[in-house]
Amino acid sequence: MKHALSVTRQQNFAAWYQEVISEADLAEESGVRGCMVIRPWGYGIWERIQKLLDARIKAAGVDNCYFPLFIPLSYFEKEADHVEGFAKEMAVVTHHRLVGDGKGKLIPDPDSKLEEPLIVRPTSETVIGAAMARWVQSWRDLPLMVNQWANVVRWEMRTRMFLRTSEFLWQEGHTAHVDREDAMRETLRALEMYRQMAEDDCAMPVITGEKPENERFPGAVATYSIEAMMQDGKALQAGTSHYLGTGFAEAAGIKYQDKEGGQQFAHTTSWGMSTRMIGGVIMTHGDDDGLRCPPRIAPWQIVIVPMLRDSDEDEAVLEYCRALSRELGALEAFGEPVRVLLDTKATKAQVKRWSWVKKGAPIIVEVGPRDVAEGKAAVLRRDRLYKDDGKLNTAFTPKGDFVASAAKLLQDIQASLYAEAKARLDANIARDVSDLAAHFKGDEAKFAGWVEVQWARPSGAALDKIVEQLKALKLTMRNAPLDAAPADGACFFTGEPAVERILIGRTY
Amino acid sequence: MKHALSVTRQQNFAAWYQEVISEADLAEESGVRGCMVIRPWGYGIWERIQKLLDARIKAAGVDNCYFPLFIPLSYFEKEADHVEGFAKEMAVVTHHRLVGDGKGKLIPDPDSKLEEPLIVRPTSETVIGAAMARWVQSWRDLPLMVNQWANVVRWEMRTRMFLRTSEFLWQEGHTAHVDREDAMRETLRALEMYRQMAEDDCAMPVITGEKPENERFPGAVATYSIEAMMQDGKALQAGTSHYLGTGFAEAAGIKYQDKEGGQQFAHTTSWGMSTRMIGGVIMTHGDDDGLRCPPRIAPWQIVIVPMLRDSDEDEAVLEYCRALSRELGALEAFGEPVRVLLDTKATKAQVKRWSWVKKGAPIIVEVGPRDVAEGKAAVLRRDRLYKDDGKLNTAFTPKGDFVASAAKLLQDIQASLYAEAKARLDANIARDVSDLAAHFKGDEAKFAGWVEVQWARPSGAALDKIVEQLKALKLTMRNAPLDAAPADGACFFTGEPAVERILIGRTY
Repeated sequence: MKHALSVTRQQNFAAWYQEVISEADLAEESGVRGCMVIRPWGYGIWERIQKLLDARIKAAGVDNCYFPLFIPLSYFEKEADHVEGFAKEMAVVTHHRLVGDGKGKLIPDPDSKLEEPLIVRPTSETVIGAAMARWVQSWRDLPLMVNQWANVVRWEMRTRMFLRTSEFLWQEGHTAHVDREDAMRETLRALEMYRQMAEDDCAMPVITGEKPENERFPGAVATYSIEAMMQDGKALQAGTSHYLGTGFAEAAGIKYQDKEGGQQFAHTTSWGMSTRMIGGVIMTHGDDDGLRCPPRIAPWQIVIVPMLRDSDEDEAVLEYCRALSRELGALEAFGEPVRVLLDTKATKAQVKRWSWVKKGAPIIVEVGPRDVAEGKAAVLRRDRLYKDDGKLNTAFTPKGDFVASAAKLLQDIQASLYAEAKARLDANIARDVSDLAAHFKGDEAKFAGWVEVQWARPSGAALDKIVEQLKALKLTMRNAPLDAAPADGACFFTGEPAVERILIGRTY
Repeated sequence: MKHALSVTRQQNFAAWYQEVISEADLAEESGVRGCMVIRPWGYGIWERIQKLLDARIKAAGVDNCYFPLFIPLSYFEKEADHVEGFAKEMAVVTHHRLVGDGKGKLIPDPDSKLEEPLIVRPTSETVIGAAMARWVQSWRDLPLMVNQWANVVRWEMRTRMFLRTSEFLWQEGHTAHVDREDAMRETLRALEMYRQMAEDDCAMPVITGEKPENERFPGAVATYSIEAMMQDGKALQAGTSHYLGTGFAEAAGIKYQDKEGGQQFAHTTSWGMSTRMIGGVIMTHGDDDGLRCPPRIAPWQIVIVPMLRDSDEDEAVLEYCRALSRELGALEAFGEPVRVLLDTKATKAQVKRWSWVKKGAPIIVEVGPRDVAEGKAAVLRRDRLYKDDGKLNTAFTPKGDFVASAAKLLQDIQASLYAEAKARLDANIARDVSDLAAHFKGDEAKFAGWVEVQWARPSGAALDKIVEQLKALKLTMRNAPLDAAPADGACFFTGEPAVERILIGRTY
């Protein structure tokens, strides 16, 4: 069976990933170090993820706002833990003017040096904390829940498109509450929201759980994540939610008068999800012909390719396609109008078909003169592209039947992609491993899934030792699943009584 | 009549503008020089503008993408005109790491100095041009039409919220075409799209026209704008569309093979609209009680304020309000579900009412125990807040009647706000002025509207002279209206035969 890509997942997963991104027109290198251009199909997927997640955010009563791109350097000095964790690789603005150097080149004008350098936000806890301190006076002002959709910059030495780029797009939610209980409720609500977004919208099954202490967001009291399993068995952290205690509130001065008239510090949370999710979608659903885009997040769910031959029949084919497009566009799937594209670009039908296969449009419909004559359409389900004999699995369907079943077909594809990924996740968490080195032997590219162990959750030097031990095997602890069975044995690492179960794996 | 703000438009328009922004929770100073925090109500308006404009952009076949925040300094050296015009006040990133200075402070790490400084994008022609050069090979690839929603930074010395801030949010459309004709068609399509967005969505009447040569975007062959008249008579340029000729394509190398096999440079356009539009909405529709938000762009179109008294009747009031909210939310206005908020915040009803008056919610509905008993609602139309006697213009309406008429009421408010602004615009363009100094005498705050004159459209030194002459009167040429009557007399400035009519006024 010949595939649309030059490399398969089996041959070289990393090279396959890059080829999907390139061939599906998702993104490309920009010429600016570590920054990518997100192309229309990739950005269209991001817009879908945004739209669906934004509705969930709004439904929770969180208000969207916008905070400055620049953060004065001194803000990073206020919260020591935060400085240690973040104040390293960041883009620093030092001048505000360019001038000619007299030799035809431009240089930063030495006279425009800023008194205080500005940092391009790596995350916005500090600047949003300063605003919250202005906005919160009384318990009546709480909870205060805001979110922003923004670009952030973390200067990365080794970048990989979508997964780790110097600039990326994300949303960051920031909330302030009267007490630990209310803040923790919000932390877990956001986590559950991410789970739903990943599983229901992106068809990407995840494990929700708490990160171990060494993987916490700098300054957080507790960090939770959703972890997804990629097709190479590695974990992708696809969203995080942090309970920050009162540390950030104390640094920023977020105080409120309680009902008894006393002054209290607010308990804050933050939670974020980024364009990294698109990398997760590729590595969860892609196959050797490119991306398979879950219908809920596909910019176009059904693409109609007219087979034109510069002949007299072309107009009849186009007219038939336009009618089909109108009928499909009048349908609803997942509570929204079906998104249909009639691709009339001046390219050969064969080329178009494969470009939509690579992009992963859920349903591709080809219409030629014979289909018009017979009142049919050639329907290709992207998630089941080939028959057992290796031939394309095209269904020549009467037009009316196809229209009548199209919405259900989209729902089936969504469910089928999820089921496939869920089966893989469930089958590849080992719970009876006694020797990690043996289980994860071989090179890093070898599929080994994850291992769940019981542990005593030590901290300090005892934890450091475990982390080092795992690091030597290129492993990390992912999270302690919220719905894991209670611990009932000895700690895998120390032999002490275990208190919880935790997942271990290789990671992106 | 007592108003909700401490200063009226008449007393001090600039102070009134700032007070509306503050009291309506639209935005505030961030503590970061020249950057603002856009608060939920302000950002909600922006989201509405985005949503409505984005639908128009997509309907035109333009694809959303995302390009890097950072532009290498050398890109600005490629296009000489562009350098002269833009390469001045910009944020320059020179380092990529912070370190401690050993005295508890952070400083840019001298070892992390970038070989080539990066500029925070002031606009993206250069970086998008570089991408287009990669994407365009053949006439089949054209037109290539992309848009991005992004933040941009222009280091401004004097800032004013929404109108001129160092960082602002905007969309920038960039398109490439086979020839001048097709590019010009797109330039004018974008201009017409902005007119519709301003007039139909924001209820803000505008004049569409071509900017004079001295006001062109640096490097453009022709710049068009929409100009709106604020309540102080000043002009606000609220959107621009540029035909860039082949200059940017030559600088970036956007070449294509034409149908005959020859190599041609593409003709490009760019067009943008920003958060400045929100400033225009405030200064077009605001009154001495705050903002009046046109229903199409109001985050909430109807706000229900329950009058609670910590009594046994509260639950019945709330239940009545919830039912009303459901009924209103099931309606459609302007082809979308009506956006209804039941404001249950723990604040006094009186305070809430005035906070929604200041924010400009189009319809405010108060419900107390007596309304519940009588099956009524106290309906306040924000655009007609007072009766002739100065009392609040509250209509005690049977609930069913209100629900039945609510969608039409929203449409009436939208139309009425537009009609009021249109009458002001039409009444305040003088066409018979012979002495500009006399017409615009008095201080800058004095309302003088605009003047339309005929002119010969000179360039070079003759144009410079006119520009200087106007500048002495604090005046600028706004645009030459596309639908103005043909010129039929002598140039206002030179006495030569006039070729077109042009608007003159004070401006933001």
